[in-house]
Amino acid sequence: MIFENVLIVDPVYGEFCGDVEVEDGIITKVKKKECIEPKNILLPGFVDTHSHGYSGIDCMNATAKEFENWANFVAKDGVTYLFPTTVSGTKEELERVLKEFLKAKHPALSFLHFEGPFINKEKAGAQNKEKITSFSKEKLPDLNNKVKIITAAPEINGFEKLLEFSKENNLIISLGHSNGTFEDFKKAYEKGVRRITHFPNALREFHHREIGGIGAAFSLDFYVELIVDNIHLSPDFVKLVYKLIGPERIILITDSISATNLKDGIYNLGGILVKVKDGIARTEEGSLAGSTLKFIEAVKNFRKITKCSLKELAMVSSYNAFKSVEMNPPRIKEGYPAKLVLLDDELNIKKVIVDTPN
Amino acid sequence: MIFENVLIVDPVYGEFCGDVEVEDGIITKVKKKECIEPKNILLPGFVDTHSHGYSGIDCMNATAKEFENWANFVAKDGVTYLFPTTVSGTKEELERVLKEFLKAKHPALSFLHFEGPFINKEKAGAQNKEKITSFSKEKLPDLNNKVKIITAAPEINGFEKLLEFSKENNLIISLGHSNGTFEDFKKAYEKGVRRITHFPNALREFHHREIGGIGAAFSLDFYVELIVDNIHLSPDFVKLVYKLIGPERIILITDSISATNLKDGIYNLGGILVKVKDGIARTEEGSLAGSTLKFIEAVKNFRKITKCSLKELAMVSSYNAFKSVEMNPPRIKEGYPAKLVLLDDELNIKKVIVDTPN
Repeated sequence: MIFENVLIVDPVYGEFCGDVEVEDGIITKVKKKECIEPKNILLPGFVDTHSHGYSGIDCMNATAKEFENWANFVAKDGVTYLFPTTVSGTKEELERVLKEFLKAKHPALSFLHFEGPFINKEKAGAQNKEKITSFSKEKLPDLNNKVKIITAAPEINGFEKLLEFSKENNLIISLGHSNGTFEDFKKAYEKGVRRITHFPNALREFHHREIGGIGAAFSLDFYVELIVDNIHLSPDFVKLVYKLIGPERIILITDSISATNLKDGIYNLGGILVKVKDGIARTEEGSLAGSTLKFIEAVKNFRKITKCSLKELAMVSSYNAFKSVEMNPPRIKEGYPAKLVLLDDELNIKKVIVDTPN
Repeated sequence: MIFENVLIVDPVYGEFCGDVEVEDGIITKVKKKECIEPKNILLPGFVDTHSHGYSGIDCMNATAKEFENWANFVAKDGVTYLFPTTVSGTKEELERVLKEFLKAKHPALSFLHFEGPFINKEKAGAQNKEKITSFSKEKLPDLNNKVKIITAAPEINGFEKLLEFSKENNLIISLGHSNGTFEDFKKAYEKGVRRITHFPNALREFHHREIGGIGAAFSLDFYVELIVDNIHLSPDFVKLVYKLIGPERIILITDSISATNLKDGIYNLGGILVKVKDGIARTEEGSLAGSTLKFIEAVKNFRKITKCSLKELAMVSSYNAFKSVEMNPPRIKEGYPAKLVLLDDELNIKKVIVDTPN
């Protein structure tokens, strides 16, 4: 397959015109050349490290077949690397998710993300407080190298042990659902943690006498997941994060739930009932409960708010996500997997290639 | 008078060794030369644009003689330009302050700062809510060119008229005691306002769906007053402001009250009773009510927290303050007023020259 006369956007080399050849799921040739007004833009396929569901499918209940359907759905939004995300669950519940995920076959299914259960009840958000707990490795099933991210609060009991466990198991800890202080975040940072989950949702408020996790993200070199749906965060906030934290460390995510792509109504988020009205998902208590955001919309919103370059857009939509989990990031370069998104100049999706096996 | 073999710190030229000659209150010669380990550091005299009192003296009640005594007191802390600061008051009360201030003669007495009354009652802090009001010029006495700064909230009624009034009267508006949104601050910024009073004390909390005045200070090029007493702001916060806003836009202030330099007890802050315990001043409701900070302590605290350069220390202790009120900033340069502070290498005050007439 050849993409001819496209604006190629590589997160390292930047933007240039040319042709890209793909064979057997691999980029075999990237040819730079003069183009006259290329109509389409070729980006690495998007990475969504945080999504709970889509179109009626919920991670906590999904069958292998549903995981595959889910991957097919999000591929239409440009996502070629999906990290299905649990909420806090018992060992048995998480084991079931893992079992189904292991059986599922789809090139976009990357790894699981466990959002909890080692988080802070005070910052549970839309999670079931009864399933939130301190860390001990006995509370987790055998991860089978299929879990890449665990979201945890740095102030919980057993956090240091979780860090050791994460190193032994090739896992990345992402700080979140936390009431931790700046000191808690700084300590975790000093031990190598470099990631914050849906920043700054479900973190302690910023205060000038305790700057907390928000202050830590502004002070230290954390990667931050952002839900850019104009609901979880105001555009002014996103602009500020773009200025202060920068496109090198922002990771777009959807945090989407099963209601995504469906009508308003009552949905299930890992056992918690969620009411969706005007596309906004809330628990009975009124907490935001994930989103109904599609990845391509996050990409469009981010560009519109920040007026970032296309190179920066490639960074926030795929490159940084993989950097943050210490994986080799997607590129448009010979020898790399041909997971690609072709967009028109208004960022509408024209074509997505996802069929390279993982 | 000659300062020989000192480390000269100019906010523009930076640090260099040499001699400084002073005659009739003017710097007549700055001679750069090789020195071997200069023992002392020569900085421009400090500027305190925000101080309510000192050693039993309270701005709202001070006589002309007390203004002079006050200036003598703070000169011992290195302050050679003092802006005595009122709280919200009636026209008659402010008129009385002005009358006494006009009679006072001391080279360190610069201008008055009116902190209120055009602020937001919801963010009154230690101010008397009954005296807080919307703007109309009839509520102010004749300023006689002796008021330089008015702290006001951008969301109050009449703020636009206050901006016009400030331009006609050579005044600087400093935003503070405000519950204003980011939009309110941005609008004021677009109309030329560049200053925030004791940031971020008495401002709306920072939130990711309404970043408010704190977000404005992090987004736009405001000068910010900071009370670096390790009580109003945590050292982590000060470090963050140093990183995000930078030494070019930080203005150290004391916000000191009459209890400064005295023992713990009950004091008067413009009619509000304030309890001072362990040097911390609070209203009956527990709000912080100014400080008992001495300027030289603010300077030491800031250096210790940020590890800034001496050039940066000159910027935050005098240069930026004058820039923020559009006055010609203090320098160590021939032809400039000889208002100088000599410090040892631990920033203890060795000598202060203040006797140049304004």
